[in-house]
Amino acid sequence: MPLITFQPSGKTVELPRGSDLLEAARQAGVEIEFPCGGKGTCGKCIVRIISGDVDSDSLGVLSASTVSEGYMLACRTKILDTPVTVEIQEPLGREGGKFSDELEDIQLIRHELLPEDYQFDPLALKWVLDVPPPQKDDGLSDLDRLTRTLQKEWGKTPVSYTLPVLRSVADVVRRENGRVTVTLIRSPERYQVIGIEPGDRTTRHYGISVDVGTTTVAVQLVFLPMAQIVATRTAYNDQIECGLDVISRINYSQKPGHLEELRTRVLRTINRLIQQVCSSHGVAPNEICNGVVAGNTTMIHLLLGLNPEYIRLEPYTPTVLEAPYLTADQVGIAINPQSWIYIAPCVGSYVGGDITCGLLCTDLAAPGDEINLFIDVGTNGELVVGNQDFLLTCACSAGPAFEGGGIECGMRAAVGAIERVEIDAESGQARCQVIGDVKPRGICGSGMISLLADLLITGWIDAAGKLDRNRTSPAIEIDGKGSRYIIVPNEQSASGKPIALSEIDIENIIRAKAAIYSACSLMLEKIGLEFADLATIYIAGGFGRFLDIEKARIIGLVPDLPREKYRYIGNSSLMGAYMVLVSQDFKERQLDLARRMTYIDLSSEANYMNHYTGALFLPHTERSAFPTVHALIEGRPSPG
Amino acid sequence: MPLITFQPSGKTVELPRGSDLLEAARQAGVEIEFPCGGKGTCGKCIVRIISGDVDSDSLGVLSASTVSEGYMLACRTKILDTPVTVEIQEPLGREGGKFSDELEDIQLIRHELLPEDYQFDPLALKWVLDVPPPQKDDGLSDLDRLTRTLQKEWGKTPVSYTLPVLRSVADVVRRENGRVTVTLIRSPERYQVIGIEPGDRTTRHYGISVDVGTTTVAVQLVFLPMAQIVATRTAYNDQIECGLDVISRINYSQKPGHLEELRTRVLRTINRLIQQVCSSHGVAPNEICNGVVAGNTTMIHLLLGLNPEYIRLEPYTPTVLEAPYLTADQVGIAINPQSWIYIAPCVGSYVGGDITCGLLCTDLAAPGDEINLFIDVGTNGELVVGNQDFLLTCACSAGPAFEGGGIECGMRAAVGAIERVEIDAESGQARCQVIGDVKPRGICGSGMISLLADLLITGWIDAAGKLDRNRTSPAIEIDGKGSRYIIVPNEQSASGKPIALSEIDIENIIRAKAAIYSACSLMLEKIGLEFADLATIYIAGGFGRFLDIEKARIIGLVPDLPREKYRYIGNSSLMGAYMVLVSQDFKERQLDLARRMTYIDLSSEANYMNHYTGALFLPHTERSAFPTVHALIEGRPSPG
Repeated sequence: MPLITFQPSGKTVELPRGSDLLEAARQAGVEIEFPCGGKGTCGKCIVRIISGDVDSDSLGVLSASTVSEGYMLACRTKILDTPVTVEIQEPLGREGGKFSDELEDIQLIRHELLPEDYQFDPLALKWVLDVPPPQKDDGLSDLDRLTRTLQKEWGKTPVSYTLPVLRSVADVVRRENGRVTVTLIRSPERYQVIGIEPGDRTTRHYGISVDVGTTTVAVQLVFLPMAQIVATRTAYNDQIECGLDVISRINYSQKPGHLEELRTRVLRTINRLIQQVCSSHGVAPNEICNGVVAGNTTMIHLLLGLNPEYIRLEPYTPTVLEAPYLTADQVGIAINPQSWIYIAPCVGSYVGGDITCGLLCTDLAAPGDEINLFIDVGTNGELVVGNQDFLLTCACSAGPAFEGGGIECGMRAAVGAIERVEIDAESGQARCQVIGDVKPRGICGSGMISLLADLLITGWIDAAGKLDRNRTSPAIEIDGKGSRYIIVPNEQSASGKPIALSEIDIENIIRAKAAIYSACSLMLEKIGLEFADLATIYIAGGFGRFLDIEKARIIGLVPDLPREKYRYIGNSSLMGAYMVLVSQDFKERQLDLARRMTYIDLSSEANYMNHYTGALFLPHTERSAFPTVHALIEGRPSPG
Repeated sequence: MPLITFQPSGKTVELPRGSDLLEAARQAGVEIEFPCGGKGTCGKCIVRIISGDVDSDSLGVLSASTVSEGYMLACRTKILDTPVTVEIQEPLGREGGKFSDELEDIQLIRHELLPEDYQFDPLALKWVLDVPPPQKDDGLSDLDRLTRTLQKEWGKTPVSYTLPVLRSVADVVRRENGRVTVTLIRSPERYQVIGIEPGDRTTRHYGISVDVGTTTVAVQLVFLPMAQIVATRTAYNDQIECGLDVISRINYSQKPGHLEELRTRVLRTINRLIQQVCSSHGVAPNEICNGVVAGNTTMIHLLLGLNPEYIRLEPYTPTVLEAPYLTADQVGIAINPQSWIYIAPCVGSYVGGDITCGLLCTDLAAPGDEINLFIDVGTNGELVVGNQDFLLTCACSAGPAFEGGGIECGMRAAVGAIERVEIDAESGQARCQVIGDVKPRGICGSGMISLLADLLITGWIDAAGKLDRNRTSPAIEIDGKGSRYIIVPNEQSASGKPIALSEIDIENIIRAKAAIYSACSLMLEKIGLEFADLATIYIAGGFGRFLDIEKARIIGLVPDLPREKYRYIGNSSLMGAYMVLVSQDFKERQLDLARRMTYIDLSSEANYMNHYTGALFLPHTERSAFPTVHALIEGRPSPG
C-alpha cells in the first residue's frame, strides 16, 4: 500500500489505492476542514501535492491555474499506487493551546460569523488575461491592448495604471504569448491596475487584514483566491512605551518628533507581524497586494502621521473619519508598495474603524425591530446600541487592564496566560487553566474576570474589591495597607516569581468594568430602555477564544441577563477587516453603517458620573440590577 | 514731482501727481503690454507696488487677494505725492536679441495663436475657502467640513486628498479663522486636493509647460491665475551625448543601466531649467503645482523610464500613448511633489504629444472643407494633413541639423547664432545677421536655410549642394575632395575660429529637408491631392521667431506655394502645452484630435524612397514642382 505523508507535520499513513486524501488525513490524525461534508463543493479541504501521482477531479471548484500548481481538494483526490506527499495549511503557533492566534479558533469564529451566502468579491483581484500581440497600424499601444482585453471581460469602466506597471508592461505582455496576470483594484468609477506579471500568477495572491489596537496589533494573512485565512499574529503595539491609552499617546505626540516616532513604532509592529505571517508560510510580502486596516480613530491618526491633538480638545474633532485612497508605500506598510491600504471608516473621535468592523460581524442592524447591543471591550470600550432604524454609539475609557496593560502580572491572551481560575472556597487558593499547557507567565483579561468572579462568589473579596483580612489564606499576602492575591506561587510560575493580583490591580479592573457597564446603562437610559429590552448582546474583545460570560456578569462587566442573549465574537475588529478584504459588499455595508451611526459624547453627559460611580462595586451598588448574581453570592457556602 | 522707479531695470521717471503708471512706464522707457489700449479690461499691464502710495482701482479685473498683495493694473493706477517703486514682469534673457526664449516673442506668438475667446480653466486651481469651525456633535471631521465647503462651491463631485494634505489639514483650517487655499486638480469624476495652505495664497500659483525635444528642452513658467507666461528657458537635452536622434537613444537605452541614465539626464535638463525660470522670478519650485509635458513618443518613454525598444522593432508598438495620472514625485520633476504631470497624448510610435500640442495651435481641423498641412521641423519631422473630417499623420527622420545638431558649427536659435545670411553674388561672401547683436558663435537652422538658399540663387552651390570650384571666393576653402564655405572668418567670430559649413554639413541639411519634403509629397499622393490643393501650411519648429519661408521654399524644404498660404507658428509644442495647462477645454480638444489621427508608417510605404531621392536636390529633381524657385535661379545675374 502506498505511503501518504502529510507536511509539515510529517504524519504518515498507508492506505489502499482508491482511498481519498480526506480519509487518509483522518486516519493519519491530520485535521482538514470540510464543512460541506466532503461533497467537493465548499473548497475548504484544499491541499497541495508535493510529490507522487494522484487521481483528482478538483476542476470546477478550483481554477485550472490553481490545479496546475498542484492544489487539489482532498475529498476529490484519490490515491494511486505511488507514495504521495501532501502539504496542508497547518495552523501557526503550533506550540499548542488556545490563544487568539490559533488558526482553528480564527476559523471557528470565521465560520460562525461569516454569512454562508456572502458575496466573495475582494477589493484586490488577480486576473489572467490573454493580451493579443501588437499589430502594425492598429494605432494601439501595449497599454491600449491591455485595457481593451481587460474591458472585454470587466466592462467599459476606465482603467488606470501605476508607473511601475507602465514600466514593465511592454516586456511582460511579450513573454508568455501575451498571457499576463494583472492585479486590479476595482471601484465603481475606475479600475486601477497595480501589478502585472507574466503568465498565470493568480495563486500567488494574498491580502492582509490588520487590527491596530491601542494595546495590541493583529495581522492576518489571507489567501485571497479562496478567502482563506492562512495565519494570524498578534503582538503588543510598540507604542505602549509612549502611553497606555489613547489620551496619553495624544499627549506624547505633541512634543517635537514624537508624532513621527509613534507612527514609526506602530509601523514597526505591523511590519514585524507581516514578516512573521509571511515567512512562516513562504509568502513574499510583495505578493500581498491589498490591506484593510481597522483601528480606533487615534490609532489611525497616528498610523497616518496626522496630528491627533484635536481629538482630545473640545469639540473633539478628528482630522479624518473616512480616509482617502492610500497606497502601502505612502502609509509605510511593507507589502507590495502599490497596494491599496483601505482604512475602515471611523464614526467619531472615540469610535473608530475597529467598531465599524466589529458591527459587520453582528446582526445588530439586521431587519427586525429588536434592539441589540454591541460592546467592544478594549483599552477604550466602545458600544453601539440600535437596530435597523437607528444606531447610537459611544466610547468610554476602560484602560488596558483587560488586555493585560497596567496590571502587574497582566498579559494578553497568549501562551502562558492564565485564562480561567477556580477558587477553592475553603483555602482561598486558585486552580488555574493556562493557555498552551505550559507554566503560567501571567494572567489575561478572561483570567482576571474569572478570578474576581470566583473570589467574589467565595467571599474572598468584598463588593469593593478588598481582600478578606479576617480569614487567612496562603493565597493572600497582607502588606501594610495593601494586600495582594497570589494566584500562582513562585515555584509554579514560568519566571520563578509569584503571579499575583494586588488590590490596586483589582481597583484597575473594577474601574475598567465600571466604565463599560455605566456607558451601557447611560446609553439605554438616553433612549428610554432597560437592559431587559435588549434582544442580543454582542461582546467583542481580545479575550481569545474564551470569555466566560457568566463570570463577566458576576463582576458586573455586563448586565445580569440570561446567558442565551449573549454572543461572544472575539476580535471582531480583525474579523470585520477580513470581511472587508474579501468582499466589496461588506465594504459598502460598513460605510453605510458608519454613516448611519450617531456618536454620543459621554464626557458631556451630566449623568455619566453617577452611572460610573454606581458601577464601581462588584457587581454593582444597585442590588436589584443583578438579582442572579446576588442569589449566587448569598447562596455561597458560609466560610469554614 | 514724485520719482517713479521701475524694477528690476532700475529705470526712473518723475511725473506729476495724477499721472498713471502706464504713462510713467512709457516715459521711463519700460515696456508694459496693454493690448486693450489701457482700458483696464485685459489685465495684462499688471505690476506690483513695492513701496510708496498710489491710487488704484484694479478691483474687478484683479481679485481682492491679488490686490492685497500689491498687484495693480498700471493703466488704472495713479501716482500720488510720494515716490513709488514698481516691479514689472520683465523678459528673461535680457542680453537682448531675438532668440526663442525672448518673452516678447513668446507673448507675440501667444497672442497670435491663442483664440481670443478661449476658456480659461486651468487643470490645477487654487481656491480660497472659508471652512466653518469644528462643531460639537455634528459628526464631521476636519476633512468632512473641508469637503462640504468645497462641494458647496464646486458641486457634489467626490473629493479626494493626498496624504500630505491630510497631515496638514487639521492645523491649517484652525489658523486664519478657517480661511484656507486649496490646490485642486479637477476631473469630471473627482476633485483631487493636492495642497492646502492657511489664508489666501491664490497669487502664489504657478504651472509649467515643458517641451521635451530630442535635441532641445524648453520650460515655460506660467502664472496660472492670469495664464501669464512669466519666463521661458530652452537648453539642449542632456541626452544628446547618448545619441543624436531617437533611434540612437533607443539603441543606447538597451544596455544595462542606460535606460535609467537617459531618464536621469532628461530630468536633469528639465529640473535645471525649472530652477532657472523660478530663481529669476522669485518663485519657489514648490509653488508650481501642475505641469504639462509634450514630447515625442520616445522622449516620453525615456522620461517615464519605459523601455522604448519596441518603438524601434516591428510592428513599432509603443508602451503607452495616453499616459495615466502621474505625480511630479513619481515622474521626478522637481516641483510640488503632489502635482499632476499631464503628458500630452501621443498618436503613434513616431508621432507624439509635441504634434498633438502643435495641432492645438492651428485651425487645421477647424470647421470647413479646406485641407491643411502641418509640418513640425525637428530632429524628427512630423506632419499632419487633413481637415475636420480626417487627419493623417506620419513622421520622418530629418536628423538634428535644423536644431544645430550634427553640423560642425551648428547651434540652436540662441544669442550668438547666425539666423540670416545674405551672399554677395560677386565675391561669394556672406553678410550675417546674428541673434543678440554679439559676435557670432555658430549658425542656427534658419541661418542654414537662409545661407543655402542664397548660395543657390547666387550660383555658389549647385543643385547637388556642391560648392562652385570653378570660381574663386575668399569664402570657399577647397581641401582635397571636400570643400567648405566660410560664413564668418576667424577674426570676426566669438571663438576666434571661423564659422563654416562643409559640404558634408550641406549634405546633412539637404537630407533633412528632403526627408520632410518627401514625407509631405508622399502623404498627399496617398490621398490623391497635390500641394496646390492645400489651403494653409503651418510650419512649426525651433527656429525662434524667425523662419524665412521664402528661403525654405528655395531650398525645397517646403513646397513652392504662395507665401500667404504659410503660417510659421514657432515652437508650437511648447505653446500647445501651455494651452493645455491653462484650459481643460484644450486638453479635451487635444485628446479628441489625438484619437482621430491616423498614423501612417512611412517605412512600409514602398514609394517613399523615390520621393526622398527626388528631394535630395536643391530645390528638387522635378523642376516643374518649383517653378518660382527656378525662375529665380535662372534670373540670376551672370557671374562676373
